[in-house]
Amino acid sequence: MSTEIYAEYPPELSTQQERWLIQTVKDWTIEHGLAIRPSTAIVPEKTNPGNVLATNAPVTLFPSPFPKSCYDQARSLQQTYNELYAAIANDEGWLETIMEELIEVDDFLAKLWETHLRVKKDGYVQNMTLGMFRSDYMLHTSEDCPPSLKQIEFNTISSSFGGLACLVAEMHTHLATYPSAQHPVAYPPHPLFSNYESTSIKSIGHPPSNTAVSTLTAGLAAAHQAYGPSKSSPQLPTCILFLVQDEERNIFDQLALSRHLYKHHGIPSFRLRTSKVMSDTFCAFDHPSRPLVYTPPSSPSTKYEVTVVYFRALYSPTEYENSDCWASRYWLERSGAIKCPSILLQLAGSKKVQQVLTSRPPGPDYLKAFLPNHSDATLDNLRSTFAPQYSLSSTDPAVQAEGIKLALDRATAANHVLKPQREGGGNNIYRTNIPPFLKSIPESEWKQYILMELIHPPEQAHNTVLRSDGAVFMSDVISELGIFGTCLWKTAPGVKQPEVMHNTEGGYLMRTKAKDSDEGGVAAGFSSLDSLILYEEV
Amino acid sequence: MSTEIYAEYPPELSTQQERWLIQTVKDWTIEHGLAIRPSTAIVPEKTNPGNVLATNAPVTLFPSPFPKSCYDQARSLQQTYNELYAAIANDEGWLETIMEELIEVDDFLAKLWETHLRVKKDGYVQNMTLGMFRSDYMLHTSEDCPPSLKQIEFNTISSSFGGLACLVAEMHTHLATYPSAQHPVAYPPHPLFSNYESTSIKSIGHPPSNTAVSTLTAGLAAAHQAYGPSKSSPQLPTCILFLVQDEERNIFDQLALSRHLYKHHGIPSFRLRTSKVMSDTFCAFDHPSRPLVYTPPSSPSTKYEVTVVYFRALYSPTEYENSDCWASRYWLERSGAIKCPSILLQLAGSKKVQQVLTSRPPGPDYLKAFLPNHSDATLDNLRSTFAPQYSLSSTDPAVQAEGIKLALDRATAANHVLKPQREGGGNNIYRTNIPPFLKSIPESEWKQYILMELIHPPEQAHNTVLRSDGAVFMSDVISELGIFGTCLWKTAPGVKQPEVMHNTEGGYLMRTKAKDSDEGGVAAGFSSLDSLILYEEV
Repeated sequence: MSTEIYAEYPPELSTQQERWLIQTVKDWTIEHGLAIRPSTAIVPEKTNPGNVLATNAPVTLFPSPFPKSCYDQARSLQQTYNELYAAIANDEGWLETIMEELIEVDDFLAKLWETHLRVKKDGYVQNMTLGMFRSDYMLHTSEDCPPSLKQIEFNTISSSFGGLACLVAEMHTHLATYPSAQHPVAYPPHPLFSNYESTSIKSIGHPPSNTAVSTLTAGLAAAHQAYGPSKSSPQLPTCILFLVQDEERNIFDQLALSRHLYKHHGIPSFRLRTSKVMSDTFCAFDHPSRPLVYTPPSSPSTKYEVTVVYFRALYSPTEYENSDCWASRYWLERSGAIKCPSILLQLAGSKKVQQVLTSRPPGPDYLKAFLPNHSDATLDNLRSTFAPQYSLSSTDPAVQAEGIKLALDRATAANHVLKPQREGGGNNIYRTNIPPFLKSIPESEWKQYILMELIHPPEQAHNTVLRSDGAVFMSDVISELGIFGTCLWKTAPGVKQPEVMHNTEGGYLMRTKAKDSDEGGVAAGFSSLDSLILYEEV
Repeated sequence: MSTEIYAEYPPELSTQQERWLIQTVKDWTIEHGLAIRPSTAIVPEKTNPGNVLATNAPVTLFPSPFPKSCYDQARSLQQTYNELYAAIANDEGWLETIMEELIEVDDFLAKLWETHLRVKKDGYVQNMTLGMFRSDYMLHTSEDCPPSLKQIEFNTISSSFGGLACLVAEMHTHLATYPSAQHPVAYPPHPLFSNYESTSIKSIGHPPSNTAVSTLTAGLAAAHQAYGPSKSSPQLPTCILFLVQDEERNIFDQLALSRHLYKHHGIPSFRLRTSKVMSDTFCAFDHPSRPLVYTPPSSPSTKYEVTVVYFRALYSPTEYENSDCWASRYWLERSGAIKCPSILLQLAGSKKVQQVLTSRPPGPDYLKAFLPNHSDATLDNLRSTFAPQYSLSSTDPAVQAEGIKLALDRATAANHVLKPQREGGGNNIYRTNIPPFLKSIPESEWKQYILMELIHPPEQAHNTVLRSDGAVFMSDVISELGIFGTCLWKTAPGVKQPEVMHNTEGGYLMRTKAKDSDEGGVAAGFSSLDSLILYEEV
């Protein structure tokens, strides 16, 4: 049974084997651009004045085992999830009721909402929205039950690592199959690899191919196409803008998408730093279509009309350092470009929405309302991936009472984590620390928190990680699986349901981090890029 | 006329344009593996204990202009050059006469020759040899004549940079054509690019595609095929060995070949450090075919028989630090693997051979003797690429006298360089420093030198270089064009001519270095990888 698989994986390495494997990974990563720019903790700024150095992205030496049934389930749900979040983002009224109370405690969400309202007042001129999503899960194990999927987060903005995740899958496949799958030189024999005959486990012996890059770029290309010809007069050539942070270390992940976009779809894209939005783009706000025009600073005579603004920045409160950042967000939201995502879609991805969706009869059945055309079986399947959670500020008194009861009782609190509702802020409170913590703060502040049941990932999972500074660690690990998907839809005035034009699933991200043994919980260690080795027990 | 082309190239960049171009190059290089491991001068060892960091290979920001006629000529000669050097390496008797006198002054060549003789005594068991060649040229300009090609060196061992050179050509093409050739954002308008209409110059606007990787790997694959099935009993899987230096910073250049070899020919290859030859390979010298068996240290249960040993190491005297190195060379030479190159082929690439080949009637016509089946026109074409040179130890008294006369006369010396005959050693003496230098040493030592007429590359050539430490320099430059080729042949006992089985040309290396203005000559500055922009004047 599954636990044993984790206990006996990965295979042990001799000194010679470990040296070979690590050297191969160090070289393979740079050879293929599975790289990041090093942090100043690794290379001091004075050693790297031109910022030319690169290092491997942190990676696991082995792919992590994952039950094929759970992987298949996650994939099968993705298009429904895409549709769900499109429907949520399309329902401004519903989002408003959810945001109302959050706005009081979360300045960031409040400011996003306010920016949306300003654009609404001006009138939105673009009725299409693009979502590039990643639904993140952990495996939950409990006695006598097969492992199940629990959703951690549904990312609606800046869903990253599609580019590098494809490369990790390719690297692990290389390690498992070079020069032949029966006699790989990098991996010793193990029941999960093809170099071992096993009767109790079925595995294809290497990671499934990862189509994240082609899926994500196909989404961008669909939006680019749907935008249609330039609305400027005279007409301009069109492009996609990647909105990026001023200091981006994960640039090669992003370049994998822009390269594929040009090579396979012939669509040019440019990188625009958030600090340059106002200087390098122009938007005639009195033009009925408000075309967003980008001028590459190196080639001022050639202007481009922007079809899609792909946000790889401006997703977190810490990025909005001054009023210029908010002005830039407003500027882009108000323009005629398709936003990936719109502000409403970013808000749809907030923790609070995720918690509210868990409501079910006798409470409101939001899932059914947002996905009226899906069978109960599909909705139940989706619902099975929700981790039980309770808002301590729920408008549903029964939910609230239940949450408070579980949180204050030391015995039940022991299986929960208390998380602040606001985005990107504050520490989580674990287990039996919850009751004394709640008692130490005024009851009026309880509503800022959500109580979640703890997820129990496979306890005996191990892996070895090559960090970006070259250090190698073997440790107990926990993994998170993300499934990528894209959705393009049109909003029609007065119609609650979005008109979905493109809805796809494809590609995955596996991230693995060391268990923080001091905390005994799932607190974040150092996160590494990983891939999957799917298994079925026979 | 040509000089003007160089004077007005590359186009000037504004600050914005330069910043864009440099940033694009910094990112493109790492994204595509156009990388090297940094030297400890760039990153101190303590900052990089795991040796994980990488940086861009030094590259020019623009491709360098090159006359299409000279490029075409170099390509058209390559297969004849391949055949010439195969014939030289095949003619042990002739090489012996050339080496006889060199052996007195050059310990390295003496030791190589001695190793060859030892293997000869044991009996060679492999009658095939693979050459992976690079013929290096400079452009020579003189008043009122079109530029012409002059050969600098014909490399018969470790001809490197094919992998990275392909990437540089790809990068310059990207810069010249993204997002469109008519409106590239990275390069300002210039007559040599497609973004400018010119009536006096014809250019395709970007570098010719570089097929070095496919050409070189096809050579390795041909040799692998020709080796045939395993000669061990029981039979073993076969592989190619890349013999590499213990501390190799140019590893990504080599990995480009092994990756292509596996992907397109399905041939596994392994990297073997010179210090590990004796521990990781085995050769049963009493076996009639002496199969060379390699055991990957990480996978001792799987042995491979080596079809080809590809030397990317053991080419220079400085690499033979101790007797183990010579023992390893002997070990490999004696084995049944096809050597790329054999010792005889390495010796054929010595400077002395290059000088002797310039001999022509009334002296011996070696070219005609080695290439009996080629027309006089072809041989004259080949000969036109020889720079005039004279051995001060020539067995031809007329050549020797002419050389000494030119060297001692201040007026004629001013157009020459004096080079030591021995490999990898000593400084060159330039121009008017030659007469006093010769007078300062005993006449008996003059024979250690070759006098070469100076080559005059285009004087006004400029380019900008991004070094591996991130520094950017614009300077006067000189460039060297290398053309790659491979040749596989069989030696039949008593037959002077080799039986050529595979003879190809394809791919190029352009290297560009800053002129050292202090010396006013062609002394080496810092060398960068470059590509070509071919032009014709109309």
